[in-house]
Amino acid sequence: MLPDIQLLRPQFPIELSRVGATGIRKLVQVTRDGKRPIILISTFDVFVDLPSHLKGVSLSRNFEVIDEVLENLTAEPIRNIEELAIKIAENMLERHEYATKAEVSMSSEFIRHKRAPVSHQRTQEIVKIFSDAMISRDGKKVVFVGSEVSGITVCPCAQELARTMAAERLLKSGFRHEDIQKILDIVPIASHNQRGKAMVRVQVTDDFRVSIAKLIEIAKSGMSEENFEILKREDELEVIERAHRKPMFVEDSVRKMAYEFLRAYPNAPDDLLIFLRQENEESIHQHNVVAERVAKIGDLRKELNSNH
Amino acid sequence: MLPDIQLLRPQFPIELSRVGATGIRKLVQVTRDGKRPIILISTFDVFVDLPSHLKGVSLSRNFEVIDEVLENLTAEPIRNIEELAIKIAENMLERHEYATKAEVSMSSEFIRHKRAPVSHQRTQEIVKIFSDAMISRDGKKVVFVGSEVSGITVCPCAQELARTMAAERLLKSGFRHEDIQKILDIVPIASHNQRGKAMVRVQVTDDFRVSIAKLIEIAKSGMSEENFEILKREDELEVIERAHRKPMFVEDSVRKMAYEFLRAYPNAPDDLLIFLRQENEESIHQHNVVAERVAKIGDLRKELNSNH
Amino acid sequence: MLPDIQLLRPQFPIELSRVGATGIRKLVQVTRDGKRPIILISTFDVFVDLPSHLKGVSLSRNFEVIDEVLENLTAEPIRNIEELAIKIAENMLERHEYATKAEVSMSSEFIRHKRAPVSHQRTQEIVKIFSDAMISRDGKKVVFVGSEVSGITVCPCAQELARTMAAERLLKSGFRHEDIQKILDIVPIASHNQRGKAMVRVQVTDDFRVSIAKLIEIAKSGMSEENFEILKREDELEVIERAHRKPMFVEDSVRKMAYEFLRAYPNAPDDLLIFLRQENEESIHQHNVVAERVAKIGDLRKELNSNH
Amino acid sequence: MLPDIQLLRPQFPIELSRVGATGIRKLVQVTRDGKRPIILISTFDVFVDLPSHLKGVSLSRNFEVIDEVLENLTAEPIRNIEELAIKIAENMLERHEYATKAEVSMSSEFIRHKRAPVSHQRTQEIVKIFSDAMISRDGKKVVFVGSEVSGITVCPCAQELARTMAAERLLKSGFRHEDIQKILDIVPIASHNQRGKAMVRVQVTDDFRVSIAKLIEIAKSGMSEENFEILKREDELEVIERAHRKPMFVEDSVRKMAYEFLRAYPNAPDDLLIFLRQENEESIHQHNVVAERVAKIGDLRKELNSNH
Repeated sequence: MLPDIQLLRPQFPIELSRVGATGIRKLVQVTRDGKRPIILISTFDVFVDLPSHLKGVSLSRNFEVIDEVLENLTAEPIRNIEELAIKIAENMLERHEYATKAEVSMSSEFIRHKRAPVSHQRTQEIVKIFSDAMISRDGKKVVFVGSEVSGITVCPCAQELARTMAAERLLKSGFRHEDIQKILDIVPIASHNQRGKAMVRVQVTDDFRVSIAKLIEIAKSGMSEENFEILKREDELEVIERAHRKPMFVEDSVRKMAYEFLRAYPNAPDDLLIFLRQENEESIHQHNVVAERVAKIGDLRKELNSNH
Repeated sequence: MLPDIQLLRPQFPIELSRVGATGIRKLVQVTRDGKRPIILISTFDVFVDLPSHLKGVSLSRNFEVIDEVLENLTAEPIRNIEELAIKIAENMLERHEYATKAEVSMSSEFIRHKRAPVSHQRTQEIVKIFSDAMISRDGKKVVFVGSEVSGITVCPCAQELARTMAAERLLKSGFRHEDIQKILDIVPIASHNQRGKAMVRVQVTDDFRVSIAKLIEIAKSGMSEENFEILKREDELEVIERAHRKPMFVEDSVRKMAYEFLRAYPNAPDDLLIFLRQENEESIHQHNVVAERVAKIGDLRKELNSNH
Repeated sequence: MLPDIQLLRPQFPIELSRVGATGIRKLVQVTRDGKRPIILISTFDVFVDLPSHLKGVSLSRNFEVIDEVLENLTAEPIRNIEELAIKIAENMLERHEYATKAEVSMSSEFIRHKRAPVSHQRTQEIVKIFSDAMISRDGKKVVFVGSEVSGITVCPCAQELARTMAAERLLKSGFRHEDIQKILDIVPIASHNQRGKAMVRVQVTDDFRVSIAKLIEIAKSGMSEENFEILKREDELEVIERAHRKPMFVEDSVRKMAYEFLRAYPNAPDDLLIFLRQENEESIHQHNVVAERVAKIGDLRKELNSNH
Repeated sequence: MLPDIQLLRPQFPIELSRVGATGIRKLVQVTRDGKRPIILISTFDVFVDLPSHLKGVSLSRNFEVIDEVLENLTAEPIRNIEELAIKIAENMLERHEYATKAEVSMSSEFIRHKRAPVSHQRTQEIVKIFSDAMISRDGKKVVFVGSEVSGITVCPCAQELARTMAAERLLKSGFRHEDIQKILDIVPIASHNQRGKAMVRVQVTDDFRVSIAKLIEIAKSGMSEENFEILKREDELEVIERAHRKPMFVEDSVRKMAYEFLRAYPNAPDDLLIFLRQENEESIHQHNVVAERVAKIGDLRKELNSNH
């Protein structure tokens, strides 16, 4: 008979907020009615809490739970990615009878098809999608879903500086004011631009669900323009032109995402949380620039509707 | 005259929780009375909040502030690493007159000398030290300091399994019970062991300060044993022996750190926060194993003093 | 008509060894007769050379080639993973008429099922597999395949030190020499152990192919023992016991892989190259320890057959 | 007396190309006549080879050597960064009497002061510097030094596309050909731009040394423009303007570095090796774009002087 020292009393009777495992990588295949299955490479972090009188958690149960839930996916198809995190958390809570809560975070690489803007050349893109579930034994359930995309952002400040300088030079060179205005409207003015990462994470409930495809769109809405793995010359020109017609600070990106979220989900409940983040890998600096907003959806809505 | 479009009104009147920069790397030299200066390679993340009526933050002010504060370090020596983060946050709040709060996170690599346990061979070790400050315009100030160390952890469960098996085999081979006990006390029994990372982060105030050196010690206390860059044979034996005499789950590590912190700072105020974390890069798994505790110091103290 | 400035003459007439793209991530589905398809998340790096009279490479052609080759995989199933890299390289050479060679590196995460050693619990493991092809216009073709696995390695040196010390102590405690020998055979003696990574990469030709499954086995052969995502108590004991019965230096691991490769492929041609590498994330140090061998297979064979 | 099992015969008599340690981090202070010392955070990888009749390398000797050499730096100042790598390699060869060669790679973060282009605001920048030494017992010595910098690169292709489109539109809007030419000269035309990384690594000898400061300049020469941690508005405008006046493909960057190297070191020996690399983190793609040249310096010189 093998000993089970997890069941012993610990030396110091201190509760633990989270005990678990990080970096558990799994291949997840989600079957869908009539469409081809979605394939995700997912990384799971899973935790339960531990009371002060138990020395350790039986971690192997977590891995069994994850595997069982993933194996059964083909049997009973899931409707939403968050169902996966919820199911795993529920099963964990069942197996760890001493725990009062279970937490599951799932971060996945999702490879999608899309088309270049002019040539319509087909290509793939990678986006990250998230799903987090925290289930308490008293029935409380906190669930988040999210997405992170990359794209191109053009700096409005540098572009305005360049425009001002161009205007002055054109004036000195003898162009008339009305022509200068026309020129600056026609010619795409330089700025610095760079890879940006946009993230949106939003709380969902049994009654309020969001579509991952929609979240991906919202995250992209804050960029100056999408990026693409294949761009023919006509596409590249279009991307540059579009991006420079829509310069965005990180601040603008986060506000645009907030706006687009509220537009897409006008009935989202006031007391749910939303987290928005834009990070730009500045081409003119060695550091990155970041803007974030964490808020109750109701607060966002109030601000947006305020007399500005 | 160059335009300043940060001052414009944004398209959507939404407040931002944090606007700033991440990954600002700086060489920090801290002069000390009579000792040689401490040299840190530090990474700063700095943020202010932004009201809904301003389009953007003047980010370059942040970098000026950091550089000014760091330049002046040689002029007026600082007593504690957290003073740096506080000073930068205070100066940021001054320069960003529209912001209601400023946040600075500073994470540094700190290279220290230490000696091997038996040969006393001198060598270097790297630890991470942290300092975070959040200053509000209304005078609120939240400051954390912390450290993260690496070390070796031996699994108590696997060792107990191996001990049980060894006992059974010795019994079958004809050894007597009392000899078996003696043998298992003398022979260091195998287990799996691995690199672990321990972190402690604690809130400090003007009246309650902690020593970084002490925090490093507390973080190390949860390991089965320290690691060393140079180990001669006699040192290696000593490290193995010590580590296997003190097997620690991640759960044990976190609890030990909590205990050692309370022992070192018996007067730490009840309402300050502490965050403890142990992560083991399991040699027998591809995933890592983690335990965490976030608590008010008063709660930890109550649990530890409870009738266990 | 859009300009094509890649075709211009460069400012400085200097040849380029490699122009291309790195970090192209793709979902690869390899259909197999009668079995379920293999799904890989692959990262491609692709390059061609560039003569001194051309300003630039038309990079978008590379991405078209990769996508076309991957799309057609479902149509005509491939036999070996290296066929993919070869096909992409061949197509690239066709499209870049000015290039004299094309290079493709493909690194994939491959998620496999396996079973725990005693409980036979089913679980997944992740291994990396590699395939590199360099095709010259003059018909030269250099192709490599490889795999990288993680596992547990036990240090033979520390274990021998612990055994010697244990023997001395047992002697002092009054045990007899023959009993001490018996005890040290029965009790698994402690050492330091850690996560290791083993890699084998070998050149293949049209006439000499290797199986990826075999390469994975060879890479694992140099470890003290495999790691597993799920281990029940009886499994964990078995893994610890096995690992400590087979302590391996990084040097031993590389030599064992060499031996196992030659045993598996006794007819591997003398003039093909092989690259073997073991890296241990030492639990007692902050640094890693590494051993490597690069050799012609013929040289390895000669050394192994020498009068040792 | 502790056993030394490294000295045993291995199970398989196979030579090893490299046995050593990676990721050894050290604080390096280089004293200089009359200037303030240079402080580097350096990461060392160190290796020796191992004959087929020895089981293992005594790794702790390497760490002793590194520490001894670094400790003695304050005693006798070094002239060049490569001296450090050479000294460590020489000492390693002395201590590992069975080895025929020793290899040391040193990669350092070097934090320098610089000034913004217009405001002359002082700030810090981080560059990487490299130094590699391979010493054979037969007296052969191969030494490389190098640097890696980040900067901004503007795509010439996208800019030309935008210029062509702008010209067409201006024409349609009634501007005359000569005015269009003037306009396109005056207005900085948009393109995509991004963070780039440039690397130059060159072989040096006792008779041919290069200055690290010069290598950093050469690496920067291939960029469209430097990046800066602090940019006031007038600086930002200048950086954008300069960058867009000097658009560079990765191909251009590598060629420019080759040209600048030959201009700076007209007497560099023909048979020494040089490695040049540019990597752009494309703002319009998820992947990176890379160009490389590896060559004997003599070959580069011949190409550059050819009738182009």
